[in-house]
Amino acid sequence: MHIREVRQGHKPGERYVRIHRPFHDTFREASGDTLVARENVYAPRGNVGRAWGQARRFLIGRPLASSMLAHERLPKTKALAVFASDALSSSSYATEEILRILVLGGTLGLAFTLPVAAAIGMLLAIVVVSYRQTIKAYPNGGGSYIVSKDNLGTIPALVAASSLLASYVLTVAVSISAGVFALTSAAPALHDYRVIIAIVLIGVMTLINLRGVSESGTIFAAPTYLFIAIAMAMIGYGLFQLMTGGIVGDMARHDAELRAWESKHAFEGLGILLVLRAFAQGCAALTGTEAISDGVPAFKPPEWKNARTTLLWMGIILGVLFLGISFLATQLAILPDVDDAESVVSMIARSVFGDGPLYYVMQGSTMLILVLAANTAYADFPRLSWFLARDHYMPHQFSFRGDRLAFSTGISTLGILSAVIVFVFQADTHALIPLYAIGVFVAFTCSQAGMVKRWWTRREPSWQYGLVVNTVGAITTGAVAIIQSITQFTHGAWLVIVLIPIQVYVLWRIHAHYTRVAEQLAMEEPADVPSDSLPEPILVVPVAGLNRAVARTIRYARALSTNVTALHVTDDMDDAAELRKRWKAWGTDVPLVILESKYRALTQPLLHYLDAVGKQNPEAPITVVLAEYVPHRWWEWPLHNQTALRLKGTLFFRPNTAVVDVPYHLLR
Amino acid sequence: MHIREVRQGHKPGERYVRIHRPFHDTFREASGDTLVARENVYAPRGNVGRAWGQARRFLIGRPLASSMLAHERLPKTKALAVFASDALSSSSYATEEILRILVLGGTLGLAFTLPVAAAIGMLLAIVVVSYRQTIKAYPNGGGSYIVSKDNLGTIPALVAASSLLASYVLTVAVSISAGVFALTSAAPALHDYRVIIAIVLIGVMTLINLRGVSESGTIFAAPTYLFIAIAMAMIGYGLFQLMTGGIVGDMARHDAELRAWESKHAFEGLGILLVLRAFAQGCAALTGTEAISDGVPAFKPPEWKNARTTLLWMGIILGVLFLGISFLATQLAILPDVDDAESVVSMIARSVFGDGPLYYVMQGSTMLILVLAANTAYADFPRLSWFLARDHYMPHQFSFRGDRLAFSTGISTLGILSAVIVFVFQADTHALIPLYAIGVFVAFTCSQAGMVKRWWTRREPSWQYGLVVNTVGAITTGAVAIIQSITQFTHGAWLVIVLIPIQVYVLWRIHAHYTRVAEQLAMEEPADVPSDSLPEPILVVPVAGLNRAVARTIRYARALSTNVTALHVTDDMDDAAELRKRWKAWGTDVPLVILESKYRALTQPLLHYLDAVGKQNPEAPITVVLAEYVPHRWWEWPLHNQTALRLKGTLFFRPNTAVVDVPYHLLR
Repeated sequence: MHIREVRQGHKPGERYVRIHRPFHDTFREASGDTLVARENVYAPRGNVGRAWGQARRFLIGRPLASSMLAHERLPKTKALAVFASDALSSSSYATEEILRILVLGGTLGLAFTLPVAAAIGMLLAIVVVSYRQTIKAYPNGGGSYIVSKDNLGTIPALVAASSLLASYVLTVAVSISAGVFALTSAAPALHDYRVIIAIVLIGVMTLINLRGVSESGTIFAAPTYLFIAIAMAMIGYGLFQLMTGGIVGDMARHDAELRAWESKHAFEGLGILLVLRAFAQGCAALTGTEAISDGVPAFKPPEWKNARTTLLWMGIILGVLFLGISFLATQLAILPDVDDAESVVSMIARSVFGDGPLYYVMQGSTMLILVLAANTAYADFPRLSWFLARDHYMPHQFSFRGDRLAFSTGISTLGILSAVIVFVFQADTHALIPLYAIGVFVAFTCSQAGMVKRWWTRREPSWQYGLVVNTVGAITTGAVAIIQSITQFTHGAWLVIVLIPIQVYVLWRIHAHYTRVAEQLAMEEPADVPSDSLPEPILVVPVAGLNRAVARTIRYARALSTNVTALHVTDDMDDAAELRKRWKAWGTDVPLVILESKYRALTQPLLHYLDAVGKQNPEAPITVVLAEYVPHRWWEWPLHNQTALRLKGTLFFRPNTAVVDVPYHLLR
Repeated sequence: MHIREVRQGHKPGERYVRIHRPFHDTFREASGDTLVARENVYAPRGNVGRAWGQARRFLIGRPLASSMLAHERLPKTKALAVFASDALSSSSYATEEILRILVLGGTLGLAFTLPVAAAIGMLLAIVVVSYRQTIKAYPNGGGSYIVSKDNLGTIPALVAASSLLASYVLTVAVSISAGVFALTSAAPALHDYRVIIAIVLIGVMTLINLRGVSESGTIFAAPTYLFIAIAMAMIGYGLFQLMTGGIVGDMARHDAELRAWESKHAFEGLGILLVLRAFAQGCAALTGTEAISDGVPAFKPPEWKNARTTLLWMGIILGVLFLGISFLATQLAILPDVDDAESVVSMIARSVFGDGPLYYVMQGSTMLILVLAANTAYADFPRLSWFLARDHYMPHQFSFRGDRLAFSTGISTLGILSAVIVFVFQADTHALIPLYAIGVFVAFTCSQAGMVKRWWTRREPSWQYGLVVNTVGAITTGAVAIIQSITQFTHGAWLVIVLIPIQVYVLWRIHAHYTRVAEQLAMEEPADVPSDSLPEPILVVPVAGLNRAVARTIRYARALSTNVTALHVTDDMDDAAELRKRWKAWGTDVPLVILESKYRALTQPLLHYLDAVGKQNPEAPITVVLAEYVPHRWWEWPLHNQTALRLKGTLFFRPNTAVVDVPYHLLR
C-alpha cells in the first residue's frame, strides 16, 4: 500500500510523486488510495486513555463494527419485552391515577371508576386498530413524526416530534418514579431515598442502552414475562377468590380512608369536569402503545407483519391487565393511600396473595418492568432524534452511532434530562402524569390525521376501511388531547403546552441554520471552485521572549513560509532592548518587530498590526503562530497558556485568519 | 516606519528585503524595528466588544499608561485612611468578642474584661514599636514575607505568606460581616438580608479597587476620619457623662441579660483557659497593624519616615478607641446581645448619644469604616501575590497589571474567595474571628523573628536596641499565636492550622514547576540553539466531505507546504467513492486518502495514520489542518466544531504535532 504525495519540484511546473509505505501492522491496503484500519488501531493510548478504555469496555462493551448493524434484530418475543414494557407497565399506575381523582368526588365519584376504565379500554382498542394500519403503511418505521411529515407537512411533523421527545423523557421519569414507588410500597424504609434510587436506576439504564439494543432485549425479556405472568395470576386468583368469597372488600377501612381523604383535601363534589379529569389522568395507561410502530425496522423480517402481531398481543395483554386491576380495586374497595406510602397495586396484591412470597414477587416484578419500561424511551428517543438529525432539525451529533452502534448522544441526552426531571419533581409519579399523557395524545392525533390524509390522497386497495379506522382514531385521540389540556391545565399540563411550541420553534431554527450553512458551503460543480493554492500566507509569531519553545516555534514557522515576523508586544522598552540583543545573537533570519503598548494590552495592538499587514497584502491569508506549553502534570495547566487561549478566542472571529498551535512538550 | 521582511529569493541563498509601510493612523514609528501603538488601537471592536468596553470604562475607568505608575503615591493622611482603616475598625468588634467569651464565666468572668483589654493594649504597643524597626530596615516594603525570606529562608517565608494570604481573605470577610452587623443593629429589618448585602458590598469593593489605588485613597479618607471623630466624641462624651452622673450602668438589665446568657449557654465557670480564650479572641483588635509595613512603597517620599509616623498615629488612635470602648462597656454594664441582634458598640452609642442623629452617624460611620477596612486587604493581598508571583511561588498571572495598573488577578481572586467565605459562614463575625487572628499572629512572629536574625547578623548601628525590641516582639506574638491555636482550636482555628501547611506545599510545588520549566526552556547562549528552519512540515487535512470550507482549507494548506494529504476517515465506502469522484472533478493536486474505520472511530485511526507518516519522516514536524466553522449567531455554536474540538484536545498531547485552525466564517 502506498500513499502518494504530489510534490512541487525544483523547476516551476515540475512535479514528482513521493511514495509512502504505511505500516502494515496498523493499516491494510484496499486499493490505490484506500487504507483499512486494523483492530489494534482502536486500542486506547496512554495511561489515562487505557484506563478510560477499560472502564468503557467494562461498562459499554467492546466496539461493534458497522457491518454488524443488520444483525441486531429482535424476534417477536424479545420485541414485545423491549417495545411493550412501557405500555404494559402503565397498568400498574393508571388505575391508581383514576382513583386519586375520583375520590375527590366522594362515594359518588368513585362509582365512576369502572365506566372511566371501560372508556379507556375502548380508547385502547381504537388506538391499537389504528396503529395496525400505520405499521402496514410504513414498514420502515412509521412514528408520528414520519407519518405527519409525509402527509401533513413540516409544522405538524415538528409538533408530533416535539410532543414525542417530551413524552419519551417523561416516560423514563414516570416509569422510574412508579417503579421506585412499587419498591417503597413493599419496603417503606427506603421511602426517603427514592430520589437517589431513581437517579441511580436511570444511570444504569443509560449504560445498558449504550451497550446496544440486542443485549437489552435479552435483559428485558425475563422481567416482562414474569410481570405478565404474576399480574395475570393476581387478577385470575383475585377474581376466583371474589367469586368464591375467599376475600371481600373491607368497607369499614374504605370509609375510614374516605374520611381521611375528605379531611386532607377539599372535596369538589361530583361534576363532569372531575370525571373527565379522571379519564384524562387514566389515559396514561395508553402511553407507549405507539412505540412498536416507531420501531418496526428493529423487528426480524417480515418486519411489518411481526410488528402488527406484536402490537395486537400487547393491546390484549394491556387491556386485560388494566381492566382487571381496575375491577379488583373497585370490588376490594381499595382507595389510594392518602399519605402516598403504598400503591394501589401493592394493596391489591397484598389482599389477593397475603403477605407471602407471591406478594413480593408481584412488587419486585412490577418494579422491574417499570424500571425497564423506561427502555422503550431509550429505544425510541434516540431513533426519533436520529430521524430529526438526518432531516437537519436536530444537531447532527444525534445521527452518529457510537462504538456499540447505539445513538450515544440521544441515549445520554435522554438519561440526563430524565434524571433532572426526576430530581425536580422528587420522583413523584402523580405530579408527572398530567405532563406526560398530553404529549403522547398530541402525537397520536398528528399520526392518525396523517394516515387519514394518506388514505384519501392515495386511495390504495381497501382505502375505505383504513380511512374510517384512522378518522375515528384521529377524532378520538384529538378529543382526548383537548380534554387533557383543559382538565389538567392547572395541574402541570400548561408547562407542556408552553414548551412544545418553543421546542417546535427551536427545531425549525436549527433546520433553517443547517440550510443556510449548506447553501453557503455547497459546491454543486466542484470545478467551479478554484483548486490552486492560495497566495503564500503571512505568518506572525507573537513572542514574549526568547526561549527554547519560542525558538522551536520560529523555526517551525520558518519551515511553513518565508514570510515570517516575530512580534513582541510590551510596555517595557528595556526588556525589549534586551530581547533584541538576544534575538540578534541567536541569528535567525526571521525579523523581530517590537510593538510598544503603554497600556499593557496585548490583543488590541496585535489585531491592529494584523490589520495593517493585511491591508498591504489583501490576498494573502494571515496566520498567527502561537507557542503553547504542554505541562507534564495535570495540575500545572492553569499556570500556562492563559494568554494563548485568550488570543485564540479573539482571533477565531477575525476573517481570513488562521491560527497555528505549536505545542512544546515539557518533559518534567 | 518599515517592517522589514526577509524573503528567500528564487536562487538558493539569494535574499531580498520587502518593505512594509504600516498605517500611521494606528502605529507610530520609534526606530527601525519598533512601533508604538497609538490611542485608537485600544478602542474595542465589534458590537459586543464596544458594549463590554463601555461597561468596563464605566465600572473601572479608562486605561492608565504604565508611565503613570510612579505618580500613584499616597500622602500620610490618605495613607492612614487606606492602610489603617482595618486596624482602627477592629475596635468596633474586639471588645464585643472579649465580652462574648468572658460572659461564659459569669460575673466573675466579666470582671476580667479590663485586664484582658489592658493586656491587648500592651501587646499593641509592642507590635507597633517592633514594626517601626521593620519599616526603617525595609524602606521598599517589609511585609512578613519579605522579611522572613530575607533572613529566615524559604519555608518560614512561605508560612508567613500563606498566613497572610489567608488572613487578608478573612479581613474582607470579617470586616464586611461586622459592617453589615453595624447596619442591622440600627436597622433590624435588614437582618435577614445580611448575607446578600455583604456579598454586594464585596462586589462593589472589588470594582473600586480595580479602578486603582489612588482613587481609593480619596474615597476612603472621609469615612475613616469621620469614624475617628465620632468614636472619639462618643468616648469623650461618654466619660464626661459617667463622671458627671449623666448616665449610669443599668444593673437590672445587666443581670437579666446575664441570666439569659446562662439559660442559653452552658456556663463554664471561670478558668485560666476562658481568660486566655477571651484574650486570643480580643487580639483581633491587632489585625491590620502590619498593613503599613507591607505598603511602604505606596507612601510619598520619604517613604519609610512617612510610614513610621503613620504607624505611630495609627497605634495611638487604635489604642485609645479600643481601651475607651472597653472601659465604657464595663462602666455601662453592657453585655453582648444573646440573640446577636445588636452590637456592643451600638448599645454604647445608644446609651451615650440617645436615639438621636448622632447615634445614626456613629453606626453609619462604623459600618462605612468596616466595609472600607476590607480595602486594606485589597491593597495588600494583590501586592503580596505580586511578590510571590515575581518569585515564582504563585501563578504569573498575579504579576500582571491591568488596564488601571492594579493587579487585577489578585483583586478578583480576593473578591471571590471572601464572598465564598461570607456565604459559607453566613456573614457571622463571631464564627470567623477564631480563624482570623491566628494567621495574623503567625505572620507577626515570622516577621519579628526575621528582624531578630537580621540585627544579630548585620550588627548595624544601634542594633542592640533593635534586637531587644524585636526579640520581645517575636516572643510575645509567638506566644499569642500558640495561645490562639490551643484555646480556639475547636472553634475553627483547626481549619487554618490544617490549611496553612497545605498552602505552603502548593506554593512550593508551583515554584518547583516554574523552576523545572525555566531549566527546560532556558537558552543561556542563544547561538547554542539552531536558528535555521525545521524540515518542511507534513500537513494532513482531515476532511468529512468536499464543500467550500474544505476547499479553502486545502488551498490554504497547499500554500503552506507542498506536502499535503487530505484524509477521509469513514465506515461508509459508497460515500467515500462519491467523495473520490468529486475530489477528482475538483482538480486539486492534493491527494485524497480514504481510511476505512469500521468502528466509526475517527481519533484513533487518525493518530495511527500520523504515527505511520511520522515514522517515515522522523525529522519533519507533523501538522494537522482543521477546517472550522464560525457561525453567524451565538446559539449556533453547539451545532458545529464538536469533532474539531475533540481532535484538538487529543492532538495537543501528541509530541511534534502542530494544529492549524482554518476558520470559515459563515455570513448568515
